[in-house]
Amino acid sequence: MRIPELIERLTHLVGDDGLVLDAEGQAAYVRDWLGKWQGSTAVVARPRNAAQVSAVMQLCHQTRTPVVPQGGNTGMSGGATPDGSGAQVILSLNRMKRIREVDPVNNTLCADAGVLLAEVQEAARAAGRFFPLSLGAEGSCTIGGNLATNAGGTAVLRYGNARDLALGLEVVLPDGRIWNGLRGLRKDNTGYDLTSLFIGSEGTLGIITGAVLKLYPAAAGRATAWGGAATLPALVQLLTRLQAACGERLTAFEMMSASCLELVLAHVSGASSPLAGRHPYYVLFELTDTEPSGLSALMEQAAGAALAEGLLQDCAIAMNEAQARAMWRLREGISQAQVRAGKAVKHDIALPVSRLAAFVEEAGAALAAEFPALPVVNFGHIGDGNLHYNVLLPPDVAAPEYARLTAALNRRVHDLVAQLDGSISAEHGVGQLRRDELRRYKSPVEMDLMWMIKRALDPNHLMNPGKLL
Amino acid sequence: MRIPELIERLTHLVGDDGLVLDAEGQAAYVRDWLGKWQGSTAVVARPRNAAQVSAVMQLCHQTRTPVVPQGGNTGMSGGATPDGSGAQVILSLNRMKRIREVDPVNNTLCADAGVLLAEVQEAARAAGRFFPLSLGAEGSCTIGGNLATNAGGTAVLRYGNARDLALGLEVVLPDGRIWNGLRGLRKDNTGYDLTSLFIGSEGTLGIITGAVLKLYPAAAGRATAWGGAATLPALVQLLTRLQAACGERLTAFEMMSASCLELVLAHVSGASSPLAGRHPYYVLFELTDTEPSGLSALMEQAAGAALAEGLLQDCAIAMNEAQARAMWRLREGISQAQVRAGKAVKHDIALPVSRLAAFVEEAGAALAAEFPALPVVNFGHIGDGNLHYNVLLPPDVAAPEYARLTAALNRRVHDLVAQLDGSISAEHGVGQLRRDELRRYKSPVEMDLMWMIKRALDPNHLMNPGKLL
Repeated sequence: MRIPELIERLTHLVGDDGLVLDAEGQAAYVRDWLGKWQGSTAVVARPRNAAQVSAVMQLCHQTRTPVVPQGGNTGMSGGATPDGSGAQVILSLNRMKRIREVDPVNNTLCADAGVLLAEVQEAARAAGRFFPLSLGAEGSCTIGGNLATNAGGTAVLRYGNARDLALGLEVVLPDGRIWNGLRGLRKDNTGYDLTSLFIGSEGTLGIITGAVLKLYPAAAGRATAWGGAATLPALVQLLTRLQAACGERLTAFEMMSASCLELVLAHVSGASSPLAGRHPYYVLFELTDTEPSGLSALMEQAAGAALAEGLLQDCAIAMNEAQARAMWRLREGISQAQVRAGKAVKHDIALPVSRLAAFVEEAGAALAAEFPALPVVNFGHIGDGNLHYNVLLPPDVAAPEYARLTAALNRRVHDLVAQLDGSISAEHGVGQLRRDELRRYKSPVEMDLMWMIKRALDPNHLMNPGKLL
Repeated sequence: MRIPELIERLTHLVGDDGLVLDAEGQAAYVRDWLGKWQGSTAVVARPRNAAQVSAVMQLCHQTRTPVVPQGGNTGMSGGATPDGSGAQVILSLNRMKRIREVDPVNNTLCADAGVLLAEVQEAARAAGRFFPLSLGAEGSCTIGGNLATNAGGTAVLRYGNARDLALGLEVVLPDGRIWNGLRGLRKDNTGYDLTSLFIGSEGTLGIITGAVLKLYPAAAGRATAWGGAATLPALVQLLTRLQAACGERLTAFEMMSASCLELVLAHVSGASSPLAGRHPYYVLFELTDTEPSGLSALMEQAAGAALAEGLLQDCAIAMNEAQARAMWRLREGISQAQVRAGKAVKHDIALPVSRLAAFVEEAGAALAAEFPALPVVNFGHIGDGNLHYNVLLPPDVAAPEYARLTAALNRRVHDLVAQLDGSISAEHGVGQLRRDELRRYKSPVEMDLMWMIKRALDPNHLMNPGKLL
């Protein structure tokens, strides 16, 4: 179908105000927020509800028009950016913003895909409950995008990834049919787990338009601490000790290397180290509980034991909310500090927790030998085995050299990750960024399984082409 | 291929001692433990490892021989019993009994599919860790069967179903290829969630031969209580209060109706009620914690508040391990008591927790009107919204009347479950038992999605035909 005719028919489906046709309006949709990917489109369609998404998809199915679903456009891997052909329609969920139901007795919340993560958190809070998913972009990412990419973040240690926080979905299939899987059930053994299949499929199998999410009891108390350690193995051992002593109270265990903290202190205004001395590694750890009376004592006991055993060289326990927030600002300031420090080659990797230390030692040695001038910024969610193992480049690095270094560093880091049975994309997904890497490291059997499913559900290959597979 | 030739080739693959050919030896394989389903087979193949499973499946693929995978043969829905044709090969995993690895730092355990659930629990315990999946058949069911059926049980409230407890799988595909997805990672966003897809697929997509399971810190303390309540809404409210006050310490919340307790007291030797009076509903609830010092006080406070608010009419807190065990024996004795009481029409249903009380009220009224002579035995995992809503039949009921009553009761109960957005199979799976019911209650879109996946992965329809779909 010719573009003008497609646009005319789309206008009938979602209205004039449901389309973005001018280049200025489209600018925010065709480029990712990092500025890494730039595509183009003839039209951005913004349906108001699942019925309109269904109508748009039926039209795209009939006309064999490829579709790029988009939520808050905050992804890290270019999964929501169209290619440069102009032939791909962007289907934005950002007008689907209704919280459909909050059921505090069932501990569930049902929301449209376009509701912001922060709005979901707030609706849970207003009902006296807690929605745990938490990440830097929570004020601008959508819950639909979180589910499409199986977002991680800082609460995974205790509550799991986005997939673990959804009980049911509503999905518009590539042919426009609506699958209503919006069940709020803790147990349901009636067939294949379609919900888990669509979650993390990055828009390549269908479009998530709504979800039933799990809520948790709200915490009544919190204890936050900041420690300095001599080695990464010491931190891994501390993690094991804290889990044994505090169980599920341990809701955060965030590591950063000395060079990472220095970057934050240099680039984030108002940031200051909670400890007087310098340590090779730092950890922010936090306990939360619905029954807060014993929490301070437990934290003091745990921190004291870690110091006595030498797992920590020094430790500060936040005495009030302001001190706790200051500790979290150091963790949350890393992204900003990296941007200000210049270019970086980033790796979002996961390993068995028991192999983290081996990875860091081997990777550190390899990179020091091959790329002696490039500093490593290493931080991450140790409890999930997830490292953001980034390598800083000189600010003035030229494009060809940047490309060469990216390829060389990816190869070195990802080869080592693969040797240690790790993942080359822990929480950021594959998108465009890691698609070629995926083909390199996945087994042919696993690639074939994924393709069998892709071809079965999207035989015309219209859903987010060029992403993931 | 003719049967003698198939057997000869299987002998080459798994050895003489890997086949069961005589009727006496096959008896335990061709009939389910409940005695509800009886099939037949020419041969039971018992491979020793994934490579042998792969070889058997290649042969079955080449010869278009249908295969019924079987673990401990303890399922509730006939999912592991062949049909009566004799044409289906039983592939038993019961010689694959190796625990491949325990990694206490990564909190994972890797096991062959044929390891008994109790052996997994024990291996975790020996490493100072805890594997939470727990159900009546744990001494005879296999972890592979648990995963194939996404088993539930009494620890779902806190730890989730079998699917939530697995990080990775090894699966032999219908064409004999081995998919090695044995990853022990908490985060891995590199494509479709194949692990969740195979879990709960009841052997219709492939054969699970191994799994990486999640371990948890071992609890250091436990507090168990038994309460009597006037109504089910009071128990649902108590659940909410306990979750708010105790958070994730609440690891069990098991309900039984008065008639259910009476059945246990009548049929299980040594069983006695912890409370002097009679109450319409009973609940067994339990708190566990890695840090046990405050647990008794928290339980006393919670139970005291429930009594003061009138949510419980009476309550007994176990003063020692023996009393706690006695309370659990009442819960665990229900299955045995039902068997001794005669025939029953069983329903394994799930509802949103907020609709449990409405269901019980409406179903109770409907059944009292239509089937006034048939007592209801209602018990279940309230925290998961899962009821075992069973109806006792007269011991001397004749087969045709049994069939008529089963159909009529299923229709009445399942219609109501569907109206309330529930599930007709919460934790027991579909198998043969609920296959026709599934077709009735699933939407055409959802059935079609499942069939698309089935056809893509098993185009020759060789995997466990006649089950689930």
